[in-house]
Amino acid sequence: MTEQRYEEEATPPVKKVNKVVLAYSGGLDTSVIAKWLQTEYDCEVVTFTADIGQGEEVAPARTKAEALGIKEIYIDDLQAEFARDFIYPMFRANAIYEGEYLLGTSIARPLIARRLVEIANETGADAISHGATGKGNDQIRFELGAYALKPGVQVIAPWREWDLNSREKLLAYCDEHNILVEKKKGKSPYSMDANLLHISYEGGILEDPWAEPEEEMWRWTVSPENAPDTAESITLTYKEGDIVAIDGKALEPHKVVAELNRIGGQHGVGRLDIVENRYIGMKSRGCYETPGGTIMMRAHRAIESITLDKEVAHLKDSIMPKYAEMIYNGYWWSPERVALQKLIDETQKHVNGEVRVKLYKGNVTVTGRRSETDSLFDDRIATFEDDGGIYNQYDAEGFIKLNALRLRIAADKGRSNQ
Amino acid sequence: MTEQRYEEEATPPVKKVNKVVLAYSGGLDTSVIAKWLQTEYDCEVVTFTADIGQGEEVAPARTKAEALGIKEIYIDDLQAEFARDFIYPMFRANAIYEGEYLLGTSIARPLIARRLVEIANETGADAISHGATGKGNDQIRFELGAYALKPGVQVIAPWREWDLNSREKLLAYCDEHNILVEKKKGKSPYSMDANLLHISYEGGILEDPWAEPEEEMWRWTVSPENAPDTAESITLTYKEGDIVAIDGKALEPHKVVAELNRIGGQHGVGRLDIVENRYIGMKSRGCYETPGGTIMMRAHRAIESITLDKEVAHLKDSIMPKYAEMIYNGYWWSPERVALQKLIDETQKHVNGEVRVKLYKGNVTVTGRRSETDSLFDDRIATFEDDGGIYNQYDAEGFIKLNALRLRIAADKGRSNQ
Amino acid sequence: MTEQRYEEEATPPVKKVNKVVLAYSGGLDTSVIAKWLQTEYDCEVVTFTADIGQGEEVAPARTKAEALGIKEIYIDDLQAEFARDFIYPMFRANAIYEGEYLLGTSIARPLIARRLVEIANETGADAISHGATGKGNDQIRFELGAYALKPGVQVIAPWREWDLNSREKLLAYCDEHNILVEKKKGKSPYSMDANLLHISYEGGILEDPWAEPEEEMWRWTVSPENAPDTAESITLTYKEGDIVAIDGKALEPHKVVAELNRIGGQHGVGRLDIVENRYIGMKSRGCYETPGGTIMMRAHRAIESITLDKEVAHLKDSIMPKYAEMIYNGYWWSPERVALQKLIDETQKHVNGEVRVKLYKGNVTVTGRRSETDSLFDDRIATFEDDGGIYNQYDAEGFIKLNALRLRIAADKGRSNQ
Amino acid sequence: MTEQRYEEEATPPVKKVNKVVLAYSGGLDTSVIAKWLQTEYDCEVVTFTADIGQGEEVAPARTKAEALGIKEIYIDDLQAEFARDFIYPMFRANAIYEGEYLLGTSIARPLIARRLVEIANETGADAISHGATGKGNDQIRFELGAYALKPGVQVIAPWREWDLNSREKLLAYCDEHNILVEKKKGKSPYSMDANLLHISYEGGILEDPWAEPEEEMWRWTVSPENAPDTAESITLTYKEGDIVAIDGKALEPHKVVAELNRIGGQHGVGRLDIVENRYIGMKSRGCYETPGGTIMMRAHRAIESITLDKEVAHLKDSIMPKYAEMIYNGYWWSPERVALQKLIDETQKHVNGEVRVKLYKGNVTVTGRRSETDSLFDDRIATFEDDGGIYNQYDAEGFIKLNALRLRIAADKGRSNQ
Repeated sequence: MTEQRYEEEATPPVKKVNKVVLAYSGGLDTSVIAKWLQTEYDCEVVTFTADIGQGEEVAPARTKAEALGIKEIYIDDLQAEFARDFIYPMFRANAIYEGEYLLGTSIARPLIARRLVEIANETGADAISHGATGKGNDQIRFELGAYALKPGVQVIAPWREWDLNSREKLLAYCDEHNILVEKKKGKSPYSMDANLLHISYEGGILEDPWAEPEEEMWRWTVSPENAPDTAESITLTYKEGDIVAIDGKALEPHKVVAELNRIGGQHGVGRLDIVENRYIGMKSRGCYETPGGTIMMRAHRAIESITLDKEVAHLKDSIMPKYAEMIYNGYWWSPERVALQKLIDETQKHVNGEVRVKLYKGNVTVTGRRSETDSLFDDRIATFEDDGGIYNQYDAEGFIKLNALRLRIAADKGRSNQ
Repeated sequence: MTEQRYEEEATPPVKKVNKVVLAYSGGLDTSVIAKWLQTEYDCEVVTFTADIGQGEEVAPARTKAEALGIKEIYIDDLQAEFARDFIYPMFRANAIYEGEYLLGTSIARPLIARRLVEIANETGADAISHGATGKGNDQIRFELGAYALKPGVQVIAPWREWDLNSREKLLAYCDEHNILVEKKKGKSPYSMDANLLHISYEGGILEDPWAEPEEEMWRWTVSPENAPDTAESITLTYKEGDIVAIDGKALEPHKVVAELNRIGGQHGVGRLDIVENRYIGMKSRGCYETPGGTIMMRAHRAIESITLDKEVAHLKDSIMPKYAEMIYNGYWWSPERVALQKLIDETQKHVNGEVRVKLYKGNVTVTGRRSETDSLFDDRIATFEDDGGIYNQYDAEGFIKLNALRLRIAADKGRSNQ
Repeated sequence: MTEQRYEEEATPPVKKVNKVVLAYSGGLDTSVIAKWLQTEYDCEVVTFTADIGQGEEVAPARTKAEALGIKEIYIDDLQAEFARDFIYPMFRANAIYEGEYLLGTSIARPLIARRLVEIANETGADAISHGATGKGNDQIRFELGAYALKPGVQVIAPWREWDLNSREKLLAYCDEHNILVEKKKGKSPYSMDANLLHISYEGGILEDPWAEPEEEMWRWTVSPENAPDTAESITLTYKEGDIVAIDGKALEPHKVVAELNRIGGQHGVGRLDIVENRYIGMKSRGCYETPGGTIMMRAHRAIESITLDKEVAHLKDSIMPKYAEMIYNGYWWSPERVALQKLIDETQKHVNGEVRVKLYKGNVTVTGRRSETDSLFDDRIATFEDDGGIYNQYDAEGFIKLNALRLRIAADKGRSNQ
Repeated sequence: MTEQRYEEEATPPVKKVNKVVLAYSGGLDTSVIAKWLQTEYDCEVVTFTADIGQGEEVAPARTKAEALGIKEIYIDDLQAEFARDFIYPMFRANAIYEGEYLLGTSIARPLIARRLVEIANETGADAISHGATGKGNDQIRFELGAYALKPGVQVIAPWREWDLNSREKLLAYCDEHNILVEKKKGKSPYSMDANLLHISYEGGILEDPWAEPEEEMWRWTVSPENAPDTAESITLTYKEGDIVAIDGKALEPHKVVAELNRIGGQHGVGRLDIVENRYIGMKSRGCYETPGGTIMMRAHRAIESITLDKEVAHLKDSIMPKYAEMIYNGYWWSPERVALQKLIDETQKHVNGEVRVKLYKGNVTVTGRRSETDSLFDDRIATFEDDGGIYNQYDAEGFIKLNALRLRIAADKGRSNQ
């Protein structure tokens, strides 16, 4: 389809803004944005840099921001909050988008959005800004969150406005405005995003869905081929649907995720390579490493398998795709997500016990699950041996006969479903 | 809960039956049943033995049946039909029960049920019989199918009626009635069921969900540990959602499944160890080997990822749990399954193309997917590079603003979703 | 389908029971049951009679029970509890079964079941009994409730056991056992059930779905033809989804329902004549009068229409059929119903305000809805007049363009949905 | 929330367009648009006026268009197509939006969209245009349809572009450009839209949801108060889910709808007054008259009640809200709607028979339903009288016991759902 009309389109109008809070990483893009906002909007910029477990130092962001003339600089460690209030609730739902994706990027965005709004409120800012492009999901997640939490906020999304649409132009802008940027050698050809839950890769050769990513792309996991030849087993303790201990050692949520990342990564666990549907309706190739999350997903289903009622489990499965879609699309801060969460959390009251998983060269194998207090697995009933009359097999006849009744009536009247 | 009342219960009444078609494997249980039906019901017995890919010779069933005095003996090779009309349609739906189980046993039962009914019609039988217990799912699947296809049929389920509830009693019955059975050495301690799609294990030490199955239990796959140190890649060709070729070689459905079982099994692919909820409401531990099916599931999602519309994909995901439940519970021959199948098949028109998967020590990794005719992946739009104006990033602002409208109105009126 | 086998079936075994709590109405059927239980099971019988708003005196049940030799007699007024804990929560969900039925009978059963179990616990009874037939839904609702609340309880369902399957046989039994029953003249030809929420009619000429019920059948409502020629308007006040006042006068839930029944009935509101699908798979014709409930349903949707978020409303609508099915099928006391209720109740926090409805000859017309505190209706935005720039119409272009993106890509590649 | 930024926004850029097809009613708005398009875009305008049963002459549109200098003028009678290919398929689904709205406007839009595209293709136009505002649903329905059917089409939505945002400005524009418009006296204060299925009213005093519309607003129906004092019964004949005859007289779909509108309107049937959620997230008050559709909805449920299998009916109910949402939101020409339609149409094969409805002062009462060929209502089974053993009541015990099993196990382990 041709879209020539847009080429002639006027630059969107500059909005009146007094102070803007910028989600600032300290890298090239957001450094340019920090300057561009001051220049273009003639406004004060507050930078906000968060440690959400991306694995890079956040402290240097202060010096960089100061060099850009920023006066109000926020640097926060949000890892504990991220795991406790976002990752953990999501895993209670067994949330998977499109059958494969563990929502590693999606789940971090509402946290950032909330903190941006909090800082805007603290500093009296009337706008927020971010470095996400106009083609992706993240702009939506940031902005829906911001609008939901501070309905009158202005949002500035430079990538949708400016024409600095290449690395070259960004570097030229730096030169022009005396912005110091590290000239990284061996800059990754991929667009990456990392947090406590995962690291993602897009772009580069991944734009051909037939092309396999090269081994060097992956950063958090070894390949199954290079993983140890010996399996490792760990035991996870669950309390109300959440992992509270690994091998009997109590850990806070973010420590749990970090530790499972470490062990999983070492065993080549959690690589994913998919084509997904973005909210805006385009398909996009993404590669993900989610070692801890992959273990958590399998183990959570395992503990639920012995502690959840059948119909509750099926109800959860039936609403899960909708819940995952809400998170993917950026509706964490919506009343429908909150309502579903109430349902999900209610189901986790009895999800207590232990799961043993074995990690080996990319495989996560559940090798045992038990719950002293809450198991609904009743070996007295399930046994193939004599059950002492506890279950009356003859009941099955009535069960089947009545479940068949409507089918028999229909067949008797000549209907066929062949 | 105490159920003493049942101990005193009268034996269910013997029904008047003239001729019964028995699903006959040739093994101990169904040999006893064949005799027991003749004795107890004073009726003619027709045996029906099917090759559905279980990997055992079916021919010997003739001699065994003759030895039991059976006059009408049916032995059918149903593999082609099984793959084409049951396995393939089910995989179009990405059907998984309770997040894990590929429905290997469930999908074979409606085929057996239909053939039992066909034979009953051909031979003028008024009843069918099977060797499934009164605690399991299979009795339901057989019987719902039979009632749906021949509403006036009688069903005799000996395990719900007799008191031969142990191997010892069965062997004693054989002695008493001169039934020759092979005294297998090293009889497996597990209750097993195999067909082209999978082999299952229940009972024995599996009745403790904390216990890990021993390595010797598994029959179709090597362990990941014992799989080759070198990965193997294969390319699957899809036509309207079905695999029609492996590495460019056209194969009929049942040959595809068999070949994928062979390759997958060799690479340790497709083991599963779960606790599932039976239809009748009890939890049960099952282990499964589904090497081919595991590959098919991943690859089908991959080809759909580039050829299915987003909302169609999400619609499929939202109804999938219900569809899987129908198959698990035995409602293949129901109008609701047929109606859902219409929807599913409609969605597969454009699911054409190729998927490359890599098999390595238990891992199935999709390394490429393409479709010359039907890919909706548009790298011109998805690119991180300059797209030449084909996508107008500024549209995203309106998209977000209007999707946020209801959230902003609510927040503006003081509602909070935190 | 022929079912001759059952004719020869042995009478089910008599169970050992010490004391049984009987849901006792004082009418013919349950009087016979009270005696039959004493005779057949040689056990003590406790009678339980509840006033759940059926509109008949419950006090006489005491004398009748005493005449039958009953020593432990419970007579309870459960109207307040019924409305508050059952009817009200259900109406928060807008629950309708099969698009029409307001679940009037279904919702009373879990209350009875719980009280039966409580009395069994208080009196040390090991069984409960009821007068529902083996073809209907009520047996299931009573028994699922009883089993869920007291898993080891015995259930005696005389209609499934005895051969007193006609009014004549029951009367003969009374003669034989000296049971005094009122010889009602003009006994209704219908099987009826009444409680605070509705009255139902089954059987008689209703067994022909083409036949129209005669006017005399209906008991709670006048016909629209006979209703007043002048409309009447009332205003209902909602608090968190529940009606707390009529025309400004605060009323407890059961008073609200009773008053709405009175007004509605007077205006010919709430008759329903349907064929429904019973849980056991047969179709059955039922006529219902639910005057108050009909008003409540319309009014609740009206107050939600201005106070509920769009996506929350849609989420509620999408799960409603499942919720209604749970209640219809008897799963009130199940963890899945409780989980859904959490979701539903969460959504009602902001459902506050007033609804004005007009009643006229069978019609319930909503003529106004408002909420000072919680309306999301924003006339500044919705107006067709100039909105002062509060809504930017140009945003709609981006919204549409991106929602169309996937459709355009597909069409561009030659796909057609015509 | 303040939105001042938009006030300063530049007028959207004028696009290069050669020829545009305009959905032209002949009224004030679209006459202005016809001129404005020629002036503003310097392009040829093709007008398209359709008779979709709105009840106004379409012929005068020719003279008016000619007066505006239009050379290519299309005037089509689309009533037959509208009823057959849009209204009828939708009613097979029992589609209702938000529990109340029969989608009368929504279902006409995809037809118009398709015809606009067809005419664009016939005349070599590169754009389409319509008179819908930037706040409503119709712009979305027109444009999603157009983009889906002609992905490269340009869309011009003058209401989103120009500043003629009041009747006064439009009239001034007419004066300025010598456009002749009828000076209607007593111009309705409402924004109205009519087609074969319904007429809608928005705006004016309706913008206060507490205000009752005055009686004069309604155009197609008398009030129940003014309807005849005598009821009227009609019999509808269904074939595969569609009405094919009224009182035995075969009629084409559009004749059926028209005739039911006539009869229904006469009896005060089909008024609706609601607040609904628009796709773009704002709430809006709408009043609708859908006399025929209201009858069709009730009658269709009635014929389904005896001919549809229970689980099929429940499946339909569970997907209905999603289907209705698709139509409301404008996704008729989407692959997901087509896929759902396949399912729905499959379910209608056996929906054959007759329904008798009684119309009286606003009430539509189903008084009978029958199907010689396809009724699943089996009075032999459903009867309260002796059924001759066709149904074995004892089966119910097993049915209940096994459905209760999971609840009993859980209760036995101390779980409570109270």
